[in-house]
Amino acid sequence: MTARKVYLAGPDVFFRNAAEVMRKKGELALEFGFSPSTLAEDDLDPAGLTPYEFGLRIGLLNERKMDESDFIIANLTPFRGISADVGTAYEVGYMRARGKPVFAYTNTARDYFTRLTEDHYPGDPLEEVEGVTRGRDGLMIENHGMIDNLMLDTAVADSGGTFVTGDVGPAGDLLGDLAAFRECLAAARAYWQAR
Amino acid sequence: MTARKVYLAGPDVFFRNAAEVMRKKGELALEFGFSPSTLAEDDLDPAGLTPYEFGLRIGLLNERKMDESDFIIANLTPFRGISADVGTAYEVGYMRARGKPVFAYTNTARDYFTRLTEDHYPGDPLEEVEGVTRGRDGLMIENHGMIDNLMLDTAVADSGGTFVTGDVGPAGDLLGDLAAFRECLAAARAYWQAR
Repeated sequence: MTARKVYLAGPDVFFRNAAEVMRKKGELALEFGFSPSTLAEDDLDPAGLTPYEFGLRIGLLNERKMDESDFIIANLTPFRGISADVGTAYEVGYMRARGKPVFAYTNTARDYFTRLTEDHYPGDPLEEVEGVTRGRDGLMIENHGMIDNLMLDTAVADSGGTFVTGDVGPAGDLLGDLAAFRECLAAARAYWQAR
Repeated sequence: MTARKVYLAGPDVFFRNAAEVMRKKGELALEFGFSPSTLAEDDLDPAGLTPYEFGLRIGLLNERKMDESDFIIANLTPFRGISADVGTAYEVGYMRARGKPVFAYTNTARDYFTRLTEDHYPGDPLEEVEGVTRGRDGLMIENHGMIDNLMLDTAVADSGGTFVTGDVGPAGDLLGDLAAFRECLAAARAYWQAR
């Protein structure tokens, strides 16, 4: 049987050691019997392109990689704020709409409501009216016991995927730790074996 | 001709006056000849559901609304941080993968690079190596002259949509102002009239 292809999504591409991390993730995917989607370096030559044009080329290349992949494993660990990276959220939506299963992980056990109330509205009095919680700015604070915005949790749950909650602790590598990623690979292997 | 249906996406649903804003947006869409996708209240009864189950129901309902819509207008104004709301980013990816045109707007003229460097890494020395900018934490700072993460800008540009950059100024209603939304409606009308 041909190995299923996995699209590896996440802010890992912004790390200083991005190439090493993506290589490591690719190796782990192979260990679990999957073919990792990797960038074709040839397609990433910025020569002759404006920064904007180069950005478009990367975007379209990522979409082509998604189209070629059977499923996605997304690193949805909070990135530069209380929620996942928006580029990764975009890719989860893209794969979901293509009817492909979404596997995801986060490296913090603190759920969305906790991060919002403790990190974004620290010390603020919260308003509770008819079961709806709001911050001082009047904006609603989702409280569904979910890991992030409900669209992300819904995509994982309804597509048959798994959302792995890791917990690297205060001294851990919040964005880069791969234990939960490994658990996603194991869950994905079980998913495809059952098909 | 049947009116095209527009999916209205954005953090507007979290506003204290969400119902009023969505009604107003729907009225504007009608003025431009579009049928706005609106929530069916009947589908949103939380009775008998856990908060998690209710979250899933909302997520699936939003996906059904997207499937019924011909295009999306997304409010990608920065939300609780330097980037767009992740739920809205998810929806942009979803509609893009369904092959539908993506129209978007932001109410700030400050581009992604500016927001990252001024708001997220204020006062930090930035590192510049081989054309790549990084913050003190080592994370890359995208600098493509784009409005947000390159996946979002790419989706709008390549789908034939328009990304409207508004500027409400410091005293304006950053998240809620509708001038740029109106411009999206005008651009979408031109898009569909050319078809």
